[in-house]
Order: sequence, then structure tokens, then C-alpha cells
Amino acid sequence: MAIQYPFRRKRNFKETDDLGFGTRIIGEKDRLIAKDGKFNVVRVGLKTWSPYQDLVEMTWVRFFGVVIAFFVVVNVVFALLLNWIGMDCLNGVQKGSWLENFEQAWFFSVQTFTTVGYGSINPSCISTNFVAATIALVGLMSAALATGLLFVRFSKPTSQLVFSKNAIITPYRDGTSFQFRIANMRNSRLINLDVKLTMSWVEPNESGTMSRKFARLKLEREKVVMLPLNWNIVHPIDEESPFWERSPEDLAAMNVEVIVLIEAFDEVFSQTIFANSSYCDEEFLHNVKWKQMYYPDPSGSGKTILDLARIDETMPIV
Amino acid sequence: MAIQYPFRRKRNFKETDDLGFGTRIIGEKDRLIAKDGKFNVVRVGLKTWSPYQDLVEMTWVRFFGVVIAFFVVVNVVFALLLNWIGMDCLNGVQKGSWLENFEQAWFFSVQTFTTVGYGSINPSCISTNFVAATIALVGLMSAALATGLLFVRFSKPTSQLVFSKNAIITPYRDGTSFQFRIANMRNSRLINLDVKLTMSWVEPNESGTMSRKFARLKLEREKVVMLPLNWNIVHPIDEESPFWERSPEDLAAMNVEVIVLIEAFDEVFSQTIFANSSYCDEEFLHNVKWKQMYYPDPSGSGKTILDLARIDETMPIV
Amino acid sequence: MAIQYPFRRKRNFKETDDLGFGTRIIGEKDRLIAKDGKFNVVRVGLKTWSPYQDLVEMTWVRFFGVVIAFFVVVNVVFALLLNWIGMDCLNGVQKGSWLENFEQAWFFSVQTFTTVGYGSINPSCISTNFVAATIALVGLMSAALATGLLFVRFSKPTSQLVFSKNAIITPYRDGTSFQFRIANMRNSRLINLDVKLTMSWVEPNESGTMSRKFARLKLEREKVVMLPLNWNIVHPIDEESPFWERSPEDLAAMNVEVIVLIEAFDEVFSQTIFANSSYCDEEFLHNVKWKQMYYPDPSGSGKTILDLARIDETMPIV
Amino acid sequence: MAIQYPFRRKRNFKETDDLGFGTRIIGEKDRLIAKDGKFNVVRVGLKTWSPYQDLVEMTWVRFFGVVIAFFVVVNVVFALLLNWIGMDCLNGVQKGSWLENFEQAWFFSVQTFTTVGYGSINPSCISTNFVAATIALVGLMSAALATGLLFVRFSKPTSQLVFSKNAIITPYRDGTSFQFRIANMRNSRLINLDVKLTMSWVEPNESGTMSRKFARLKLEREKVVMLPLNWNIVHPIDEESPFWERSPEDLAAMNVEVIVLIEAFDEVFSQTIFANSSYCDEEFLHNVKWKQMYYPDPSGSGKTILDLARIDETMPIV
Repeated sequence: MAIQYPFRRKRNFKETDDLGFGTRIIGEKDRLIAKDGKFNVVRVGLKTWSPYQDLVEMTWVRFFGVVIAFFVVVNVVFALLLNWIGMDCLNGVQKGSWLENFEQAWFFSVQTFTTVGYGSINPSCISTNFVAATIALVGLMSAALATGLLFVRFSKPTSQLVFSKNAIITPYRDGTSFQFRIANMRNSRLINLDVKLTMSWVEPNESGTMSRKFARLKLEREKVVMLPLNWNIVHPIDEESPFWERSPEDLAAMNVEVIVLIEAFDEVFSQTIFANSSYCDEEFLHNVKWKQMYYPDPSGSGKTILDLARIDETMPIV
Repeated sequence: MAIQYPFRRKRNFKETDDLGFGTRIIGEKDRLIAKDGKFNVVRVGLKTWSPYQDLVEMTWVRFFGVVIAFFVVVNVVFALLLNWIGMDCLNGVQKGSWLENFEQAWFFSVQTFTTVGYGSINPSCISTNFVAATIALVGLMSAALATGLLFVRFSKPTSQLVFSKNAIITPYRDGTSFQFRIANMRNSRLINLDVKLTMSWVEPNESGTMSRKFARLKLEREKVVMLPLNWNIVHPIDEESPFWERSPEDLAAMNVEVIVLIEAFDEVFSQTIFANSSYCDEEFLHNVKWKQMYYPDPSGSGKTILDLARIDETMPIV
Repeated sequence: MAIQYPFRRKRNFKETDDLGFGTRIIGEKDRLIAKDGKFNVVRVGLKTWSPYQDLVEMTWVRFFGVVIAFFVVVNVVFALLLNWIGMDCLNGVQKGSWLENFEQAWFFSVQTFTTVGYGSINPSCISTNFVAATIALVGLMSAALATGLLFVRFSKPTSQLVFSKNAIITPYRDGTSFQFRIANMRNSRLINLDVKLTMSWVEPNESGTMSRKFARLKLEREKVVMLPLNWNIVHPIDEESPFWERSPEDLAAMNVEVIVLIEAFDEVFSQTIFANSSYCDEEFLHNVKWKQMYYPDPSGSGKTILDLARIDETMPIV
Repeated sequence: MAIQYPFRRKRNFKETDDLGFGTRIIGEKDRLIAKDGKFNVVRVGLKTWSPYQDLVEMTWVRFFGVVIAFFVVVNVVFALLLNWIGMDCLNGVQKGSWLENFEQAWFFSVQTFTTVGYGSINPSCISTNFVAATIALVGLMSAALATGLLFVRFSKPTSQLVFSKNAIITPYRDGTSFQFRIANMRNSRLINLDVKLTMSWVEPNESGTMSRKFARLKLEREKVVMLPLNWNIVHPIDEESPFWERSPEDLAAMNVEVIVLIEAFDEVFSQTIFANSSYCDEEFLHNVKWKQMYYPDPSGSGKTILDLARIDETMPIV
């Protein structure tokens, strides 16, 4: 059956364009936002170099690789310089081949850079003394930078909201609803959670060209003060909803993507955090309902147990 | 006398469920929030490991234990490595039994790790030189991490709001009210305090199963700009209040818990802080009023004295 | 002429009590808030020890005094310990009197604590080696703490708003107004300034006891986006103002204090800052107007010159 | 044709003065805000010294210059002190001319200040030992300060919003509009962007003196949740706009400056950032429209390419 596009019926919902995506993206089969929240946009042209952002956001493995590489290379440079000045200007060196000299110069540089300074090798000329002073200063600055970076990396709020893998279209009160659920993986508190849902789909304009539309989805509840258990985020499907009277085949043809924006205050890190995700039409399940994720502690401690592994679990509506 | 449950009378208050606790917790004798604000929820399943949060939140005794243990163990590992390479590769070692060698290797490792580097023992082979360079780098990184952690721990806003031990049901203007009081323990300023009170209780549904309900309590004043003295937080009990016409026995049977959420800006730490507590029905006192906590300085300095030790003090209403 | 207290006339202003000062302070001749914004309240009873706050807020002279004292004393303790173990356990010591030994032990401790580690004196027994390892670890932890504290102290937003010394009662549009002015001492930007003015005074209740009252003062403008020049903060005196038809003698008898709360975002420090001050009735000037503080650069550069030294300057209204 | 000043016609827009610039600036040919957002105001009089702000905001070249200069000079001072005490109080010095002694004293001071501490030169008297302890302490404090500063400098949000060079007056829906556009240079996210546009111009009062006026410009959209592509900021020119029925010559005579204030939350730096700019009438283009800056990736990856180099590009309206 031919898809009945919105332009042939009365719209009861208000279109919105506050996500900044514009209306001319017509890559119909693509997501605007990946499951982890990143944009599917590539920037070219005026690129700025932001070393801070890269150093903070790269993986731990890569970060330590950068640190070790920097450590090795800087001391190689200084070792070459010391070698060029001449090994006679260092006490305690056992002169040998160029490579042996270079090794000892490198170790001396490392001992100065890290300020260990055994003294088994030490500078005897003014030139090597100046180089040693420079190595020490560069080492101190590098340690200062590394302290800052290591600390920022270690203290960045890690993602702690887990989203259900699927969203479900399920009965709610007297009608239907679009739902997904979230929970906090950690006991640290998220305060004042604020959720915005936007639905995005593709449809033809009056002229016939395909255009991407956006509409905000009204929620049963947009704010929650705390998140001790899970939160089922519910969009009741009434006549004002873009979901109204859409079959699963309609939703697929419209290439629907529901974009989730969550803002909350993380009490441990004392920072506002943002968590984004999205649900594409292939991820919608119909005619199911949620399996409950929490239950009283059977051992009678009085506590409630929240089983995060069950967050995706649904069961058919009989 | 049988408890008259709300479902048999007209409700004048609006139920709310924005605390995220859900309605299916029926552990009737238990608190949702402990006196210090933590949730009574245990998470299982998808647990994430968050070393930062643990290292920041553990007690000082435990933290220093972790630091010392790490310090000792890392140097043990390096000492074993040096021992395995061979004591001949270290100058200044007095060789003896395996234990004596290991001790000296451990001290050498510590001297390098902390970058003290006396030089009384120093590396003579390339292998031990490389190990020493590695020890120094690991030591620097560890010091960087410790600097960050120590700083965050030392500068976390410590709780400074003291709550009265009890809440009182006491006359207020022409009626009654539910009150408790708070004060700031320190002279550092809390700005823009914002209080939300939610009452939680248990009652049977129409079907007879017990269910937990929540309702927001309206306050005489929800915001205060500063907190130089104490603040009596007052919920006037009118027909719209869930407390309306409830005797102390009613409140006990309903397993009432009043949950307090306070948000404020701490000027010293330049951070938003959240303070939570709760009052269970056993902690309500009836027919008392507050003893005043402040008085003009008798020595005539013109200042006002705020006696924090009196915060719990009440006296019977004659 | 007897003061006509408000209770004998119709009040057109709304009393407010959101400053948290309460109504029972009757130290009539005293300020609630000092000119620099601190409360005139002394806390006794449950005092908490907050070393962080003290170390961050003390003067620089005191802070460096604490640092030097700590440095000296910690090393004295370790020196005593080393002395007690025995000087034979340190290489390179020239034994002499107890004092001479103690001095050398102290210098050795300092060299280890600061990780300089010349090696001219170094440990020869296991016991002194362990002590040395401890000294190094304590030194590293102390350096970590000092780094954090020094940094926080250095980067605390320093007060940069300058208030006019006096407030003036001066004509404004068709009536009178209560005004004072502020300016930003630095070129760094304060964004989104928000001002609240509250007037506090003392008057008798119907029962005759003196009681302190508060009322919010409406402003011509409560918010300003930026502060490139000065801002004259204007409270128009209309019938709704507590100033309405009050002579200077009335204001003195009422012991008026106008409390200023300013909130702004400091762009350099990326923090919200709060600046408070107050104006007592002795600081009100009547029948004057402001001298302007800024003028175009006479050298023709096109810039505007803001002369901060003129902020207090007024001139009589002819 | 003579300029028809607003005072001879009915005003449909509301004047505003919340930018804090005042109305008496009559430097007609000058900007209030430079293109990079700084104020054109020079402060004299009560200047405060704010070393933190200077050290954080100076260029990297200048900052490292300050660091190196400080490093050199502090050690010169200590070297002079050691020299004055006498070279006999240092072991390992090869005495020679005053300059040669001074050099070795300087290197010794550097080795202690940086805590390298080779030990090839070490103190032999109590006096030089005390000086060495002082040098080490000063060195540690300096390293602490430098760590903090380096970290703050490295982590300050760098400007990442790029503004179009020109603003355009262009058709919009059924009328005209004033537009410019912005884009985020980096993939890091800016959240909750908030834009305020204020137009400033000069016109004569009824008395004839020139006075500067301000009016807020209403926007088609004032907030955008995210900025994955570019955002055309649109002020529709209707009868309520100060632009209404103004020709380009009018705008030039009025010395129009449109001041842009943008507030957003930078997710990488977890900070609120402010970006300002301004557009003077010489920078307005008429009868052009924007060339689009983004297009689907031709290689079929499904991503969208945003070409930041095209942000200034316009094309004539045929």
C-alpha cells in the first residue's frame, strides 16, 4: 500500500529544527547520530589543531604510547646534542664506539630529564652544564603538562548511562506509546536529568524533492530528579505525535530516527554531562512490553536489587 | 481504629513520581534514602569499574593504604627484575644473600622511582640503565596521578549542612505544619539554596496490592539566597497536604518517609552541591516547638552567635 | 518629630525574608553584612575543621609561613628519627656533637624530602634506607598537596568589582531614586550580571518589641549582559518602596542597611562569582548626583577611557 | 537625500541598554566591540594587578619567555648568594676567576632548584646547606605553580566558533532579513547555543546632541541545541525592526554596529563559553544569498561533509 505522506494529511505536530541538522540531508539510509552519540559529519576546510582535545580523548593505550614516544625522542635529541658537543665534556663516561657513547649520553639525558640525577655521569664543561640545565627545565615542564593531562583524563566523566538496545511501541494507558529505558550503571548520583526526544524522518516536499523533517516528541515526563533505578522514557502516541497511525512499514519507508538528548549533573565529578543516542526504525520492537529490572532483595536486607543486565529484556504482550 | 486509606477519600494532592523510585517497592519497613542521602539500592549485572570514583570517595585511611601498598609493590616488581638481570649490573651494591641483594635492589628502585637518585647505587649495564629509565618514568606518572587524586580528595566539598535530628509537627500560623531545620556549619557561604520535599508512603491499590506513593510537599519558602543563621523549612499542612488529618498512628502504618533534596552553590569550592536526607515517621516529634539557636553576642560586639549544638533542641508546647 | 512607623500606615511593599537573617536580630546599631560582604555571625557549637578552606583563604604571608613551618618541622622529626637510629647508618656524615649530627641528619632529610638527593650523605643500613624511602614518599605527597593548594590559591577569582563608597538619594526621571554604582576593575569580562537589593530596617511590632524587617527593592534594571563601563544601579523610589516619604532622620532611626547581592560569570576563571556589599544609612548622600566616570580618549584613538578612581565622585545638585 | 532620523517617525522597536555601554559614547566612527569580541575601552585609575590573568592569557611565546627568564634570574640570585658565602663552602668546585666561580655556583643552584642533584657539587658548610634547602623549597613551589599555570593554559577553551566575515541583507520568506552564519570548527560538541543580537547606532536627540542607541534584534531562532553543521542566524526585518526601511546609505550614516553575544556549553572542556563578535555597516552585503556549505559525501560513506572554508561565500541573487 502506498505510503501516505504527511503532506497529504493535516499535520498535528509542530516541526522543529533546533538540532542544527538542516533540512537538506537526504542520505536516506544513514543515521544523523550514531548509537554512541557522535555526529555523522566530517569537517573539512578550516581545520584547527586542538592538541588538548586529542590528548584528552584518545584511548589510554594511545596516550601512553604518545608519552613514551615523546620521552624517548626528546632524550634522543638531547643525547645527539651532547654527543656533538663531545663526550669529554661529561665525567664518568666510558668512551667507546659512537653507539656506546650515544647510549650513555641518552641515559645521562634521561637521568637529568627525570631529575633522578645519580651523578655517576655529570657535566664537566660549561656547554654540557647549560645543556643539562635545559634538559632539567624541559623535563619539569613536561612533567607539569603530563600531570595535568593525566589528571584530566582520569577524571573525565565516563559514560554511565546505559540505554536499552531497542525502543518499543507498546500500549500505555488508553493508547500506545514509544518507549525506551535508561539506567545509571554506577551508584554515584546523577541529579536533575532532563530528556529531549526529537524524531527525524524523510518525506517529499510539495515539489517532490526529498527533505528531512524534525519534530519534538512530547514525553510523559521530561525531568527526573534522581535515577536510583531505571527510567522508562515514554512518548504517548496521540494525534499530535508524528507516530500517529504509522505502521511499521511506514516508519521504515520514512527512515525514522529518534534522537535522544539527555542532560544531567554528575555529583562525583561535579559536572554537567550530556548523553546522546538514537534509535532507528530497525531497532523498534512492536507488541512487546518491558520485563521489570528490579526486585526486593530476597535475602531480606531491605534493599532493592537493580539488575542492569536485564535492561534490554522485553516479553511479548499476550 | 482501622486506617482510612487515601483511596477511600478524595485526594487533594497530586501524586508525583519524579524521584525515580517507582511504585513497586514494597519493602515496607525500609527507607528509600538513608539519613546521609545514599540510596538503598544494590546494582548487579553490568557493573562498570570506576577507579576514579573509588579512589576519590574512599576514606583517607584507606587511600593512604592504597598509596603505600602501590608504592611498595611497584618497587618490589622492579627489584625482582633488577635482581633477575643480575647484581653485577649495579654499581655500589654489596653482594650477599639473595634477600640482601633484593633489599638493595628495592632501595635502588625506590630511589629512582622517587627521583631522589643518590647515586650511591647506580646502573652499570645497558639493561639496568633501561630499567632505571623505566622506573623513573613510571615514578613520574605515578606522582602525576597522585597529585591529581590528592588534590581532588582534599578539595571535595565536605558536607557542611547539618540537619536537625528530628522533624516536628507543630502549629504554624492558623494551622499545623511539618518542619525540620538546617544550618551551615561553616562560615563559607552557601548561596541560592533550593529545597524540594517529597513524601513517600505505602498504601493498597484498588486491587489490594500494596504500592508506594509519592507526593511533593509544598513549602512556605522553597528558596533562600543565603544561610547565615538556621533555616526552618516549613510545610504548612492544609487540605492539599498528604499529612492532612493523619494521626501519628496513621503515619506509622503508612511507613512515611519524607525525602529532602537540597541544592546550593558553595562559594569556597565554586561548585554546585547537593545534600540529601530523609525523615521517617519514627523521627517525627509531635506537640513541640523549636528552641531558638541564635542570640546577640552578650559581650556587646554586635555580632550574633549561632549555636549549632542546639539544632536538635525542642521544647513542649505548653 | 516622632518617627511614623510603618505599622501606623498602609504598607505598599511586600516584606521578604529570603536572606535568611530572621526577624529577631535587634542589635540595632550593627550591620548584618560588612562592606566586604562577610556575615556578622559567629558560629559556636558543632564546629567542623575544614583545613582546605583555611589553607585556601588565608593570606599569602600566612600561607607561606605554614608551608615553611611544615617543611622545617617534618624534617626535624625525621632527623630526630635518623639520629636515634644512629649516625653510623649514614655514609658521608662527619660525626661530632649531638647538634652537629642533628644538623647533618636534617640536611640529609631535606635532600631526600625534596628528592634532590646529592648522595654526599646516603643511607648505609636497612633501617636508614627504610626511613629514607619514607621521607621520599612523604615528600612527594606533600609536594602533590602543595601543588594543588598553590594552584587553587593562585586561581581564585579575586574581587574585581569596585563599589562606590556611598549610595546617593537623587532625582530620577519624575521622582527620586536610591542609587550606587559599580565598575569592573579588570578588562576580563564579567557576563550576565544579576543584582538583588534588599533593604533591612528595625521597627516595633504591634506588641512594641523591636523587630528587624526586610523588603526587596525593585530596580530599574536587574540584569546587565556585560560591564564594559560602569553601571549605576537605580532603585526608583515610588509608593511601593520602603524609602517612600522617609527623611534622612527617619532612615537613621530605622537603622537602615541596604544589602547588595551580585552574581556574575567571570570569563577568565570560567566560574560564577558572587559579590556582596552593603550601605548603611550613614553612607547615604542626599541632593547630589554622579560625576561621569568615562570620556572619549582625547588622543583620538577612538577608545573610551574609564577612570576607576572617579567612582565615588559626586557633585551637588544646583 | 537627507537621512530621516528615527525621532521624526514612530518607533516600533523597544530600545534597550543592557549591554552596559551607555548612551553618551559619540565616537561615531568607532566600534564598541572588535571583531574578536574585546571591548574598545581603556581602564585607568584604580588598576589592580592580576598576575594570574596575565600569565594565563599571554601568548605561548611570551609565557615560555617568562618561565625561562624566571628560571635564569632566580638561580642568578642564589648563585650570587652562594658566591658571597664563599666557594670554600661547596665541595667539588674548581675555583678560578669570579666568573668561573659564579658559573659553577649557578649550575649548582640550577641542579638543586630542579632537584636533579647530581652531587658532583654539594654543600659543605651549614650556611650553604641552608641555602641549598631554600633553593630546593623555592624550586618545588615554582614547579607547583608552573604545573598549575601550564595546565590551565593548555586546557582553556580555544575559540572554535567561526563567524562569516560578512553579514547579508537578503530575502527571507515574504520579506527581508539580516543574516550571518556560524559553524563549529571542531567536532567537539557545543551544546545549548544561545544567541543575542543587539543593534547599536548613533542619532540625534530632540536637543540635537548625538546619542548612541541600542535595540535588541528579534531572531527567527534564539537557541539551538547542537551545532553539527552551520547555523544561519536570521533577524527578520519587519516593522518592529530598527532595520525597517533603511537604505544602505542610512545604515552608514547611522554608524550601525550589530553586536553578537553567543553563549554555549563546551562538552570537551565541560565549561560555559562565550563568543562575541560584531558587524559594522561596511561589512553588510546586499542582494546576495548564502552558498551552501555542506553536501553529502560523494564517496557514498553516508556522512555529510561540512566545508568550513566556504563560510564566507555568497552569490548574487539573480
